[in-house]
Amino acid sequence: ESANEFQSQRDSLSLKLQNSESRNRTLEAHLGELEQRLESSQQEREAFRKSLRSLLELLDGKIFELTELRDTLAKLLEGS
Amino acid sequence: ESANEFQSQRDSLSLKLQNSESRNRTLEAHLGELEQRLESSQQEREAFRKSLRSLLELLDGKIFELTELRDTLAKLLEGS
Amino acid sequence: ESANEFQSQRDSLSLKLQNSESRNRTLEAHLGELEQRLESSQQEREAFRKSLRSLLELLDGKIFELTELRDTLAKLLEGS
Amino acid sequence: ESANEFQSQRDSLSLKLQNSESRNRTLEAHLGELEQRLESSQQEREAFRKSLRSLLELLDGKIFELTELRDTLAKLLEGS
Repeated sequence: ESANEFQSQRDSLSLKLQNSESRNRTLEAHLGELEQRLESSQQEREAFRKSLRSLLELLDGKIFELTELRDTLAKLLEGS
Repeated sequence: ESANEFQSQRDSLSLKLQNSESRNRTLEAHLGELEQRLESSQQEREAFRKSLRSLLELLDGKIFELTELRDTLAKLLEGS
Repeated sequence: ESANEFQSQRDSLSLKLQNSESRNRTLEAHLGELEQRLESSQQEREAFRKSLRSLLELLDGKIFELTELRDTLAKLLEGS
Repeated sequence: ESANEFQSQRDSLSLKLQNSESRNRTLEAHLGELEQRLESSQQEREAFRKSLRSLLELLDGKIFELTELRDTLAKLLEGS
């Protein structure tokens, strides 16, 4: 092949490489963004579940207290 | 420059382009995977919230029924 | 003692007896009234307790249903 | 009438009066007993109702706390 041909191939490859590397940077930025969204979604989810676990404990407490109240009523009914 | 030099530059660029395009494919696969994880995490989250909303309605019902029971007790105490 | 004295004692006793029998009738009427009040008070008390026992059963049901709701919430939190 | 007749009537009335007064004392004792039972039954009833009113207040508190818990769950569901 002639020097001209090699030069033209080199220039064409150089352009393709620039495009490919630009697309790489775009993809990496998008990936970074998605990873951040996944992580913050995971953190929200954990915080949400933590709040729900507190709620579950509160509910346990209320059920326990209603059961005590129920037992008091039962004893009142038996005892007199 | 000589034809040899152009040829050598062309070959080097060709290798770099192959590497860059391979990295592109890897990034795209990873992106696709993350997008799927985000979507399925979103769906789980929606299903979870739907279950919680059902629970909230059930809880509303129980509170309403306890309030009726409380009113019955109050009327029993007033009425006699 | 003279006949007059016996007659006067008889008349005095006759009056006392009338008074005593009148008081007897008053006491018996009062007793009958009290017995009726005790009985109706006993019946009210039984009716009241019967209503309270129904309430206790209703309360048992509500506590059971709240416990089911609590278990559903616990399973939601474990399962996801 | 003869003195004997008056004397015999006096003695008969005297016996009847004794019986009537004895019956009076029996009735008064029974009345006293019933009045005491009514009063102590009234006091038990008041004590019972007082306990039930305390229970009613406790139940009000539990319903209020369950309603707060319900509101917390509703806010968790809205807020995220």
